[in-house]
Amino acid sequence: MSGLLDSPLAVVSAGVPLFADAAQAQAVPVTRVDWRPPEPGTEQDLARVMGDPRREEANRTAVGRLLSAGAELVDVRPAAEALGLERGSFLHAGPPIDRERASGPLRGALIGAMLLEDLAEDPAQAEQELAAGGIGLDPCHHHRTVGPMAGVVSPSMWLFELRDPQHGGTAWCSLNEGLGKVLRYGAYGPEVVERLRWMNDVLGPLLRTAVRSHGPVDITSIAAQMLQMGDEGHNRNRAGTLMFLREVLPGLIDSGAPAADVAEVARFVAGNDHFFLNLAMPACKLATDAARDVTGSTLVVAMARNGTDFGIQVSGTGDEWFTAPANTPDGLFLGSYGPLDANPDIGDSAITETAGIGGFAMAAAPAIVRFVGGSVSDAIEATQLMYDITLAESTTYQIPVLEFRGTPTGIDVTRVVRTGLLPHINTGMAGRVAGTGQVGAGIVNPPAEIFPAALRALAAAVPV
Amino acid sequence: MSGLLDSPLAVVSAGVPLFADAAQAQAVPVTRVDWRPPEPGTEQDLARVMGDPRREEANRTAVGRLLSAGAELVDVRPAAEALGLERGSFLHAGPPIDRERASGPLRGALIGAMLLEDLAEDPAQAEQELAAGGIGLDPCHHHRTVGPMAGVVSPSMWLFELRDPQHGGTAWCSLNEGLGKVLRYGAYGPEVVERLRWMNDVLGPLLRTAVRSHGPVDITSIAAQMLQMGDEGHNRNRAGTLMFLREVLPGLIDSGAPAADVAEVARFVAGNDHFFLNLAMPACKLATDAARDVTGSTLVVAMARNGTDFGIQVSGTGDEWFTAPANTPDGLFLGSYGPLDANPDIGDSAITETAGIGGFAMAAAPAIVRFVGGSVSDAIEATQLMYDITLAESTTYQIPVLEFRGTPTGIDVTRVVRTGLLPHINTGMAGRVAGTGQVGAGIVNPPAEIFPAALRALAAAVPV
Repeated sequence: MSGLLDSPLAVVSAGVPLFADAAQAQAVPVTRVDWRPPEPGTEQDLARVMGDPRREEANRTAVGRLLSAGAELVDVRPAAEALGLERGSFLHAGPPIDRERASGPLRGALIGAMLLEDLAEDPAQAEQELAAGGIGLDPCHHHRTVGPMAGVVSPSMWLFELRDPQHGGTAWCSLNEGLGKVLRYGAYGPEVVERLRWMNDVLGPLLRTAVRSHGPVDITSIAAQMLQMGDEGHNRNRAGTLMFLREVLPGLIDSGAPAADVAEVARFVAGNDHFFLNLAMPACKLATDAARDVTGSTLVVAMARNGTDFGIQVSGTGDEWFTAPANTPDGLFLGSYGPLDANPDIGDSAITETAGIGGFAMAAAPAIVRFVGGSVSDAIEATQLMYDITLAESTTYQIPVLEFRGTPTGIDVTRVVRTGLLPHINTGMAGRVAGTGQVGAGIVNPPAEIFPAALRALAAAVPV
Repeated sequence: MSGLLDSPLAVVSAGVPLFADAAQAQAVPVTRVDWRPPEPGTEQDLARVMGDPRREEANRTAVGRLLSAGAELVDVRPAAEALGLERGSFLHAGPPIDRERASGPLRGALIGAMLLEDLAEDPAQAEQELAAGGIGLDPCHHHRTVGPMAGVVSPSMWLFELRDPQHGGTAWCSLNEGLGKVLRYGAYGPEVVERLRWMNDVLGPLLRTAVRSHGPVDITSIAAQMLQMGDEGHNRNRAGTLMFLREVLPGLIDSGAPAADVAEVARFVAGNDHFFLNLAMPACKLATDAARDVTGSTLVVAMARNGTDFGIQVSGTGDEWFTAPANTPDGLFLGSYGPLDANPDIGDSAITETAGIGGFAMAAAPAIVRFVGGSVSDAIEATQLMYDITLAESTTYQIPVLEFRGTPTGIDVTRVVRTGLLPHINTGMAGRVAGTGQVGAGIVNPPAEIFPAALRALAAAVPV
């Protein structure tokens, strides 16, 4: 005790800055701590889960699997063949949802997919069928698949098939259509369906030929490189798209297909800066799937939205979804669209943040602020805050401007509840009205209440 | 005066930090100024040039032309046709040099080029011819051309032809061979000459077809985008290369050439992260050439090295070169090579820094430190220092991490002499011995004495 009094005093301040400011004005060094109490009502669950003797080891195992996963593109095939998806069945993004509660963009995308599958002759007929409950609906995530925005997959659509050579998992994702009036944003006009037909008839088969002739394409490696090239793998995929094209290009050219088709495929892929998103997403799905079902782990293994609800799944609670109404993103709008046109948060693409890229790697992609809004220092701060709610730093994905620090990886339910900090997600914005398409891009958080809900389930599962 | 005494005191400190530290320890705000006297012996010239009433307007004109220049790739053709370069004549990088004083890498590249042109049957015979003075030698810069490293251009080599739609200038540059054992680094083995023959026979003609079918390719726009994608346009050109390939790809595929040739060209371009350097360089040459010959301007319009001497040209002093022995770069080495293997600084590629990219835009390319050495904060500081010796901020090239500030552009001879700060150049390192090839990459400054020499000539030209 006397030693404590003899040594130089250190001032540490939490809460309102009054005392810290006064001390600093007198040239006394002050360490300010950004601390706040956990959310009210979570104390008992938090104590129980934090005291679970299995927790630390379980989280080490789960996040270890997430970090060590790899992702190789091994094939491109139609959903009917890859997933056994039957005529009249459709997948969608996010947690499960009834037709009645489906958002505008999800309904718009289903209408477009029904037209594509010749299940209706026009949008009105498709809407009737949909209302009559004549189709099957299931979340992508329940089929080891992820879909951006509405995430609608129908049997004739082609999918990227990725495999994790480390843990043996498989994941699928549709092919990216580009921006603007596209199905995944809920548009279903003739040009949307026509583009999807061309993707089924030309793009998918040609990519299959190129990928098969190339052999497994290392998607993890491209994703790691793109973070050195100003992409964050969710709303910025420019370098990733060009590096992917570079890999498959010789196989495309040598495919024996007509030169006009090869040129059109090259033009389509190269002209769509978001093409690689649909490869980054299943790569992230492989990593988070590898971390599932570790008893006692508080690691988030999925964040997904269906345009109505935002849901998470946690490693220690199996397939249970913890959901609440989705927030609406804040950001920049296309043309004359404004905040009232935007649908609440939608899509499986938050799997990128779940795996430690996207909004968690924003500091690697300063130019993204031109797309989602904010300043570059906001982007860097967003990444830095995420270290407070994650279990590890990526050993694969590095942020040059932070002296190559690994990205914050592996969201921990207990850290989110203790700090009150919510995951930072970069996202596109779909029009609220079915058929509109994209209206902007921005930033969004999950609804806060799903984390205490997940914590309650984790607490209930702790052995007495 | 009483007002001065009544207002709060501000402390400004220059020189040794003793006083500033003491004031700061007493909680007094201190502004530290990094000032040092100009280089001894330059005071009179500096006073004369700074007092030249034409200077400010002349520099505004010169740097205005530099900033407003554009660059479009309009054609690809052999040097014999584009420049009228005759059999037995060769261009080289840097200021003029005699055969006797030519460095190892320049001699190596000349030997390789003589073999390519069938002017010798083997390296020994080529070396004899060279020693006997049987060939013509002229700087690239004297022919509106730039060449990286040794910069050797011979009549059969194909050149990119760029035009400035704003000021009407034309500039040329050879096609990039890749890294390692390549001619521009002084290697001349059979694989080097064989690659050059393939470039003459397949790469050049196919690029010509693609560029002509595409129409003018906007190189300025690609260079601006690459700075948002982690490239700085001198030692990092990964994104630029992929974006260029994207532009010419449909034209390549539709060229009617055999698919195997098209695939090989795509593989060669996509597999060489430095391919775009040879487009960035002539784009920069167009900008600096537009700023030439403005009477009274102290703007540097060329920095170039021949492996022996480093030379600069200044807008207000016409075609005069101010030269001194080149420094040797400091950086990272390939394989078992070390500092003793490195040749002094060589190449016309410092035209990128002259135009405000390359080492001046290092903050845009943090991942480059893995190639040239140093930390990311060094890279950001390097860019920030260059604002002290430049006349403007680029209106085209922006640095995301500095909140999109324009790159420091337009080196001013008076600012270099007044501050003692030298331009920061990112560069490759050639082996000292002819035939070696690349040994590393790093950072280098011009020899300090060329700036006072240029200042003297500027002072002599000020009307009495």
